[in-house]
Amino acid sequence: MTVIAPAVILVRPQLGVNIGAVARAMMNFGLSDLRLVSPRDGWPNPDAGPAACGADDILDGARVYGSVVEACAGLHLLFATAMFMRPLTRRVVTPQRAVEELHALWQANAMQGGIVFGPERTGLETADLAIPHAVCTIPTNPAFGSLNLAQAVVVMAYEWMRQTGSMPHETMMNYEGPAAHDALEALIVDLDRRLEANRYYSPGPGRPDAAQLTLRNLLTRPQFTEAEVRTLRGVVRILNVPRGPAGSRDS
Amino acid sequence: MTVIAPAVILVRPQLGVNIGAVARAMMNFGLSDLRLVSPRDGWPNPDAGPAACGADDILDGARVYGSVVEACAGLHLLFATAMFMRPLTRRVVTPQRAVEELHALWQANAMQGGIVFGPERTGLETADLAIPHAVCTIPTNPAFGSLNLAQAVVVMAYEWMRQTGSMPHETMMNYEGPAAHDALEALIVDLDRRLEANRYYSPGPGRPDAAQLTLRNLLTRPQFTEAEVRTLRGVVRILNVPRGPAGSRDS
Repeated sequence: MTVIAPAVILVRPQLGVNIGAVARAMMNFGLSDLRLVSPRDGWPNPDAGPAACGADDILDGARVYGSVVEACAGLHLLFATAMFMRPLTRRVVTPQRAVEELHALWQANAMQGGIVFGPERTGLETADLAIPHAVCTIPTNPAFGSLNLAQAVVVMAYEWMRQTGSMPHETMMNYEGPAAHDALEALIVDLDRRLEANRYYSPGPGRPDAAQLTLRNLLTRPQFTEAEVRTLRGVVRILNVPRGPAGSRDS
Repeated sequence: MTVIAPAVILVRPQLGVNIGAVARAMMNFGLSDLRLVSPRDGWPNPDAGPAACGADDILDGARVYGSVVEACAGLHLLFATAMFMRPLTRRVVTPQRAVEELHALWQANAMQGGIVFGPERTGLETADLAIPHAVCTIPTNPAFGSLNLAQAVVVMAYEWMRQTGSMPHETMMNYEGPAAHDALEALIVDLDRRLEANRYYSPGPGRPDAAQLTLRNLLTRPQFTEAEVRTLRGVVRILNVPRGPAGSRDS
């Protein structure tokens, strides 16, 4: 069953460019249900399209409502995004927690939720804050906390995508795997031989040189591929000029 | 010791408004070190200030470099943000993993890292991708993956702030704590008495009515405060009109 992502509800948005940027961010991160409550300049808004940069499906599908309550119809768990708490007794969660709950709502009950964003200048009014079930506060620099509307949507939409978690946290691209150990060993031995001939090492009696160990360590750690080991062997060969006997050393 | 947040390196950025929006996002999420590599329209750029919405300190402190290599000086762990992998054998990580590593770098070694972003249209070139230590790919909708430059910075900067983790994931604002249980019990008993008088319940022999249990359950779950319990008792009292005997029931 396809996961239904949360709705994005923009309350009295002022600028068409922001609505467009919101649509782009939603489409970037797999959200599609855009709901507009009393957009200041009406709808459709000619400034939204260019700012959406191709996310026209989201704009075309946007629905317009006369109130927050109407826009919330059909949604089962609602978060109001807000920075400052008005004197309401209210649960306040991080974006991470809000999205965990929205995911869980889908997983456990196959129900869609929504996230409510206030107008650019003022944010949501106290009356609007009391409609959703809880408040979601995006953590920001206390001295400079006012987020652009589209950037607040980016954070929530990215959280949704992050928690969908289809992408491995770490992978190697175009990696054919580490070289066979004898190929790596041949590089180390060859380098070792040439460095010894040029009197790079100064081992104490009965112990290997520290530099020798360092070199072995730094060459084994990156898990070089066969091709990379070949490249390094060529580089060593082309760099190497055998030095004369001790005393003629030119460094 | 104050944590030093990663540098943001914009490579050949095209639009001043984007540089301004990047500065705003950085300041929102506690980053401050902005480095510009060969900005297309020179620097300073008059379009950046208005878009920064007050993050002028970041713009004023921005340094300009002639190459990615120069801009990376002094930084110890670098991630290139990119969507498409060129044929390089490269470690690719999510924003979450990249920021975990950047945090760990600070925690373990007190060293600063950086995140490299390509130009708006084209993203980073293959040659630029090979300079940082690894690639960071923001997970996006495969069918619509191209992020606005500032929004890519928002994602990385938000991750940095998220992992700083000073904000509790869940809290109750303006919450004086749950009412004493006897106050809640008095509400339940009062409601119960009035409902029974109006013949709302229809218990089977020897078992409580299911509705009675549901009501007790839904009234105890929200952990109402003393003030909220008082409000509910008033509401029950004002709603209640005792019904006449059975038979005169008006529903």
